[in-house]
Amino acid sequence: MTHDPQLNKHGELQHLLTIDGLPREIITSILDAAAPFTEVAEREVKKVPLLRGKSVFNLFFENSTRTRTTFEIAAKRLSADVINLNINTSSTTKGETLLDTVDNLAAMQADMFVVRHASSGAPHLIAQHLRNIGADHIRVVNAGDGRHAHPTQGLLDMYTIRHYKKDFANLTVAIVGDVLHSRVARSQIHALNILGVPEVRVVAPKTLLPNEVERMGVRVFNDMREGLRGVDVVMMLRLQNERMNGALLPSTQEYFKYYGLTPDKLDLAKPDAIVMHPGPMNRGVEIDSAVADGGQAVILPQVTFGIAVRMAVMSMLAGN
Amino acid sequence: MTHDPQLNKHGELQHLLTIDGLPREIITSILDAAAPFTEVAEREVKKVPLLRGKSVFNLFFENSTRTRTTFEIAAKRLSADVINLNINTSSTTKGETLLDTVDNLAAMQADMFVVRHASSGAPHLIAQHLRNIGADHIRVVNAGDGRHAHPTQGLLDMYTIRHYKKDFANLTVAIVGDVLHSRVARSQIHALNILGVPEVRVVAPKTLLPNEVERMGVRVFNDMREGLRGVDVVMMLRLQNERMNGALLPSTQEYFKYYGLTPDKLDLAKPDAIVMHPGPMNRGVEIDSAVADGGQAVILPQVTFGIAVRMAVMSMLAGN
Amino acid sequence: MTHDPQLNKHGELQHLLTIDGLPREIITSILDAAAPFTEVAEREVKKVPLLRGKSVFNLFFENSTRTRTTFEIAAKRLSADVINLNINTSSTTKGETLLDTVDNLAAMQADMFVVRHASSGAPHLIAQHLRNIGADHIRVVNAGDGRHAHPTQGLLDMYTIRHYKKDFANLTVAIVGDVLHSRVARSQIHALNILGVPEVRVVAPKTLLPNEVERMGVRVFNDMREGLRGVDVVMMLRLQNERMNGALLPSTQEYFKYYGLTPDKLDLAKPDAIVMHPGPMNRGVEIDSAVADGGQAVILPQVTFGIAVRMAVMSMLAGN
Repeated sequence: MTHDPQLNKHGELQHLLTIDGLPREIITSILDAAAPFTEVAEREVKKVPLLRGKSVFNLFFENSTRTRTTFEIAAKRLSADVINLNINTSSTTKGETLLDTVDNLAAMQADMFVVRHASSGAPHLIAQHLRNIGADHIRVVNAGDGRHAHPTQGLLDMYTIRHYKKDFANLTVAIVGDVLHSRVARSQIHALNILGVPEVRVVAPKTLLPNEVERMGVRVFNDMREGLRGVDVVMMLRLQNERMNGALLPSTQEYFKYYGLTPDKLDLAKPDAIVMHPGPMNRGVEIDSAVADGGQAVILPQVTFGIAVRMAVMSMLAGN
Repeated sequence: MTHDPQLNKHGELQHLLTIDGLPREIITSILDAAAPFTEVAEREVKKVPLLRGKSVFNLFFENSTRTRTTFEIAAKRLSADVINLNINTSSTTKGETLLDTVDNLAAMQADMFVVRHASSGAPHLIAQHLRNIGADHIRVVNAGDGRHAHPTQGLLDMYTIRHYKKDFANLTVAIVGDVLHSRVARSQIHALNILGVPEVRVVAPKTLLPNEVERMGVRVFNDMREGLRGVDVVMMLRLQNERMNGALLPSTQEYFKYYGLTPDKLDLAKPDAIVMHPGPMNRGVEIDSAVADGGQAVILPQVTFGIAVRMAVMSMLAGN
Repeated sequence: MTHDPQLNKHGELQHLLTIDGLPREIITSILDAAAPFTEVAEREVKKVPLLRGKSVFNLFFENSTRTRTTFEIAAKRLSADVINLNINTSSTTKGETLLDTVDNLAAMQADMFVVRHASSGAPHLIAQHLRNIGADHIRVVNAGDGRHAHPTQGLLDMYTIRHYKKDFANLTVAIVGDVLHSRVARSQIHALNILGVPEVRVVAPKTLLPNEVERMGVRVFNDMREGLRGVDVVMMLRLQNERMNGALLPSTQEYFKYYGLTPDKLDLAKPDAIVMHPGPMNRGVEIDSAVADGGQAVILPQVTFGIAVRMAVMSMLAGN
């Protein structure tokens, strides 16, 4: 068995690649570390010098203005120097391989790579390679890889749940939507299980669920009304239109009818249930505006907590 | 009547959305505040800490490298953290609405949005929305919206005129060119009227003038030679080729013949008249190089003053 | 004879446009100045305040993420404010000339322009223009112009050679590959000659050599095995696929067979010969992976030294 590449031999976090396999104490320590950073953002001067003089590279092989922005702000509030690199794969095929790009940036004395890539496993590959070349003082943060993982999203979701529900021990949580194509869902399921949530549900049509999804530690519901009954937390997923071929879904209207979160479906959850969404939302597709803008939604606090969680992760990886 | 959304209840500037309706004292106070910032740019270290730790987002829904650059420099010289977001509308239609984008950036604890948008009114809409969600500590600067307004351009033009002519009270000013499609012209006309310029002229063919333009407080000239006679200031407009359908103009050569600013036409203005242009210039279309590079042109000082005026606006909005 | 535009009347470096014609003492002083900057990159806080409050503009008229990144890091580690401008030539033809763009940025009180342009001579033109308008306190660094020059690449190559070989006086150096289209090769040949390398070889098929290349002070080899015999340094060039029309080369496989650097060809060089490449590499085209990743390659140290050399150049131009 190989060693988890994101932990060093003392069991400390070196890279953040996936939530799968992370010890509960590490997840909890990230959430604990994030709390004071929520206060930084409310100060007059929203900066702390924890990463001053460090070079953080946002390596975006897949375009995502929103995610890049959250990491850029987090790094700048930590006083890092941030370099944005939007590398479309077409130009990398022009000659330079992924690992040659990494070698080069490592040679520029990078301190951290925030990596977004359309291929599952790319951040792992980079972290492994850094170890091979003796450069694992450079830390890697996975900002979303293929269908695999989006660990900072999973962590900010846990922060949000803990903020509103205090404890994970007695919760029922439903993850609703396109689980099949969602790296977010994978990270959420792992995190909820590690943190001891007794019942994690996935709610989706069969065509949008991975094979044998039950093995990930979830209960499966194909009927949304049944799936939402009595839950404490509803985590909606974005319908990844661009990743689907037409065969999987009849129409977005049809989808909304059966799997869109409307006030009447939400009424089946506990009265104090919270509604989450990783954004950007498709209003009228997976979520009704009445819910998205309603009193149970905590979608914008997720964004706020996301900056603090990313500051915590970056700062912890940098050795603080 | 609704309250002017750019002023708070004490009549202080909260947002800069348009010059239309701004009290003269506010315009004057911005021009006064800009003066010391022209000196910052001449120092060895061109920075002041007025926006240190603030997060300024350049939200450019319409591409403009030049305008984005001026705001980016202004913000960095104020020590702000600047995040550039080029959001093309095609990707926003992919699911997220303008207001969802704003909500998200607000949740990231933004301090200021510099907004460029192809639709008239977008910055107003954003400012209104920020008030609705209780986030109007986030300030909005309009960096050009559709055909509506480009208030920092209007202000830097007023700074330039005041710099060279000292007083607005006895001036005759001609605005020449494509007034119909120009947000710059609208901002200039409002500013000149508010500051008490006794005669503001617009000079253009009928096809490039808005209906009932006289109501904005201008005298209309279709003949450029008549329109320039005796003026103190000539403000040329960029010919917005990309916004016109062919029907409005016969050809750029024809345009240059009748409305291009040549030395002989300029001779009709006062001998000490100054020539302005918001840039980028179409040499040989609306302006002859002999004038653009001649002794009466103050086109490059406009750019220099523009940085100082933007620093003044941002710093004033941020509460300094 | 016109004065070298990159030197002031005291013979001090004002701009870095080309290595051709630079006095040996200036090249040596840049290499000497770079040494301490390699240590900055190993500190906890990788920053020095030498360019604090200066505005450095990366003017990239030709896209190059890699080169832009090296200058951006160098400038940020010197504490400059960096503004990236990717100006595609199609949009500049929309109305504004290169010199109007320069005038505008100069009016924004720029301190330094780092210029990449597809046309040979563009950085010279800019430097000349800045002198004409009395703005040559703004310094110009050529980051690659057409087929003309890439002086910081040439300098970092010299730094690398000096680092490994200590002295230039007894070296034989081979430059291998597409010399015809390579600005890098031109800068290397000039630098090696100025620094007194007794034998500079170019190794390439006739179709990839400029006419009368011997006049540049090189020995020509069409056979790679002969050309590598007994050399101390092998400088590979990137095969500029995108610049060639099909007529010049039969195929990349054929090219690799005759001009690709393989272990057996490298065996003809001195046993302690070093292998250099400006990147990005085309593995299996101009270089074999066994060599690129082998013990004689100093390709990644070139990158590291490149940051230090760029910091030295920028800092020297800024008057430190």
